[in-house]
Amino acid sequence: MTQVQAPTVPSFPPAEYARRVEQARGLMQEQRLDALLVSSEGNFRYFTGDITLSPFQMTRPKFFVLPVSGEPCAIVAQGSEIGLSLTTWLKDIRTWPAPRPADDGVTLVAETLRAAAQRFGRVGTELGPESRIGFPVGDFLRVRELVEPVAFVDAEQPVMRRLRMIKSPAEVAKVRTICRIVSEGFEALPMLLREGDTEWSACRKLELEVMQRGATKTFKLTGLSGAGGYNRTNTGPTDRVLNRGDVLFIDTGCQFDHYWCDFDRHFAFGPPSDATRRAYELVWRATEAGIAAVRPGRPVSEVWRAMADVVASGGTDALKTKVGRMGHSMGIVLPEPPSINETDHTIIEPGMILNIEPGAAYIAPEDGGRRIMLHEENVAVTADGCELLSKRAPREMPVVG
Amino acid sequence: MTQVQAPTVPSFPPAEYARRVEQARGLMQEQRLDALLVSSEGNFRYFTGDITLSPFQMTRPKFFVLPVSGEPCAIVAQGSEIGLSLTTWLKDIRTWPAPRPADDGVTLVAETLRAAAQRFGRVGTELGPESRIGFPVGDFLRVRELVEPVAFVDAEQPVMRRLRMIKSPAEVAKVRTICRIVSEGFEALPMLLREGDTEWSACRKLELEVMQRGATKTFKLTGLSGAGGYNRTNTGPTDRVLNRGDVLFIDTGCQFDHYWCDFDRHFAFGPPSDATRRAYELVWRATEAGIAAVRPGRPVSEVWRAMADVVASGGTDALKTKVGRMGHSMGIVLPEPPSINETDHTIIEPGMILNIEPGAAYIAPEDGGRRIMLHEENVAVTADGCELLSKRAPREMPVVG
Repeated sequence: MTQVQAPTVPSFPPAEYARRVEQARGLMQEQRLDALLVSSEGNFRYFTGDITLSPFQMTRPKFFVLPVSGEPCAIVAQGSEIGLSLTTWLKDIRTWPAPRPADDGVTLVAETLRAAAQRFGRVGTELGPESRIGFPVGDFLRVRELVEPVAFVDAEQPVMRRLRMIKSPAEVAKVRTICRIVSEGFEALPMLLREGDTEWSACRKLELEVMQRGATKTFKLTGLSGAGGYNRTNTGPTDRVLNRGDVLFIDTGCQFDHYWCDFDRHFAFGPPSDATRRAYELVWRATEAGIAAVRPGRPVSEVWRAMADVVASGGTDALKTKVGRMGHSMGIVLPEPPSINETDHTIIEPGMILNIEPGAAYIAPEDGGRRIMLHEENVAVTADGCELLSKRAPREMPVVG
Repeated sequence: MTQVQAPTVPSFPPAEYARRVEQARGLMQEQRLDALLVSSEGNFRYFTGDITLSPFQMTRPKFFVLPVSGEPCAIVAQGSEIGLSLTTWLKDIRTWPAPRPADDGVTLVAETLRAAAQRFGRVGTELGPESRIGFPVGDFLRVRELVEPVAFVDAEQPVMRRLRMIKSPAEVAKVRTICRIVSEGFEALPMLLREGDTEWSACRKLELEVMQRGATKTFKLTGLSGAGGYNRTNTGPTDRVLNRGDVLFIDTGCQFDHYWCDFDRHFAFGPPSDATRRAYELVWRATEAGIAAVRPGRPVSEVWRAMADVVASGGTDALKTKVGRMGHSMGIVLPEPPSINETDHTIIEPGMILNIEPGAAYIAPEDGGRRIMLHEENVAVTADGCELLSKRAPREMPVVG
């Protein structure tokens, strides 16, 4: 077993956060923003380095305000400032006594923004596609009213998306670590599985394996199965028992130090049928084509095209064409833009991380029903191509037993 | 080791969801709402029974629309309907081809709400304290504009909070299961710990232990330590090495089948000092007083008072008085209202789950610094008192080595 590596605290040296702040300010100037307000878990952590793991925390929102010049500040519930001051670079931490449902940070956030928005009267915040806010909408509307005539405009697309899309070498290293851990876990799994396992127990075996190898969290672990294949890609695992003739699909979203991997693998219980093998081979080749197409300067839509062409050559439905995309990015959030599809022409740049995710549909002779075949690999874009972060899926589906 | 119990799919029989829908409709009628729109992960799961585990999913929001009469419907990304139709009671599932950043469900949600809001012109949604929405605020503002003159009003407080606060016996059973699993994990831990462990490796040992015993997820696991005690309750674990004289505090938020526990335990590395023992004893007694004060018909503020009195009798600061509360509730979300504090007078009712969480501050003679002592137990309110769900913390702090 590999040596288990604990995350460091803070996750990155101060220079990494200083660079993020500086780059954000450059983008804010382009957008004529006086300040940036973020409250989503991912964006808050991106700037502050907060290591707190309390997902879904509804009671005590956390705000980070970045003025275009002057000291950035965090606005958090009383009590949270102690840990933040000990584990992050933050110097200015403002607090209110929470929970205080009538005013959970609203007045304090509004005051801070009003003071910062003196020039353009514009504050950028998380409004656009694939964004979330980390506090109640009702409170957002109140803050918006309190800061008038200062206006909120979207900063998710023109600032956060552009910032987070290009990873630093240190960020790529985190994703590389979790990809390695999960790859090793997947490789160990066929020896651990047996007929009679359920989707749930099979996933649990992988989960324990990757935790023992140093995954920080195993937030998403989807397991699905069926005779000759699976008919959906979510809403699993269930207690379905795995028998000879089944294919088990496990899709992971695991983290090392808050950075995600996202890839899947397949396991056959007994030798797979010809139809299953053909679908696997086709999508494996589509993945090869996708990886080969990743080059700086190209639009991601060309990566999609390379995969779609292979899938089309197999004469089967291009499943992922219908459901919108054959990949995306990831980092401190999963998934992240861009989408690898026909219409997203985002230019590939070094430092991007991409999930190469072609899929196809086929008919299982076992019962004449529709099955799905979805492969995934994670790559980091380099100066002249890409580095494979996940260990490449085997050319033939591993067989259990 | 206890037999590992896999979650069932669906989590509850259809009658449980039918009851939730019926009770929601009763509350909606009181509020003169034509329809309810929810998109947060907790509320979506509460109504639909969706078992998908893709936390923090930003790309494909999920909406549930409950008209006050007529068929409830889910609005989800194309592809997600297959799994939902196989694993939930939902009959009406509407889809759009996602991701489609220009219109990710906006038009479809607005159309569905407009059709439903014919009588009062009011739609209840997640706006109020401790709520979140599961889609971008920019899209919320567009939906709001599209449905005009239909108005959005808060349904988190008058509908969702009241519904979710009283748990069914089947819900209490889920929390009981995770409390038992984590209690057993905590009991096993002193034998597994040793000097030289770090906060991180100690937490990992507990995490593996509770996963092997059947915890579904270990989302939140905070470990903090220091000579004679800890000085904060979040932003851990770190790679701090545990040595003789240290106290290790571990706070868990683990799940069984999407239902949370939330309690902590303490471990001394070598015999604790008198100051540490006194603080532990004081807060242990405050917890006893809190548990004894839980009775249907009383306001939760009386439970706070019972604990605050004991803490005050010790002559130390009542830490949790300052940070707002000495407990809360939990269920499919952690934490949930009410807050156990001086000003929350929510009446205790059978079926509520409460976290009894008194705290105190004290000075560690080791370095003259401030330390925190925070205890927690989880209880379910019964007809005449409460059932302890977590196994009561030992009267004296367990000693490692």
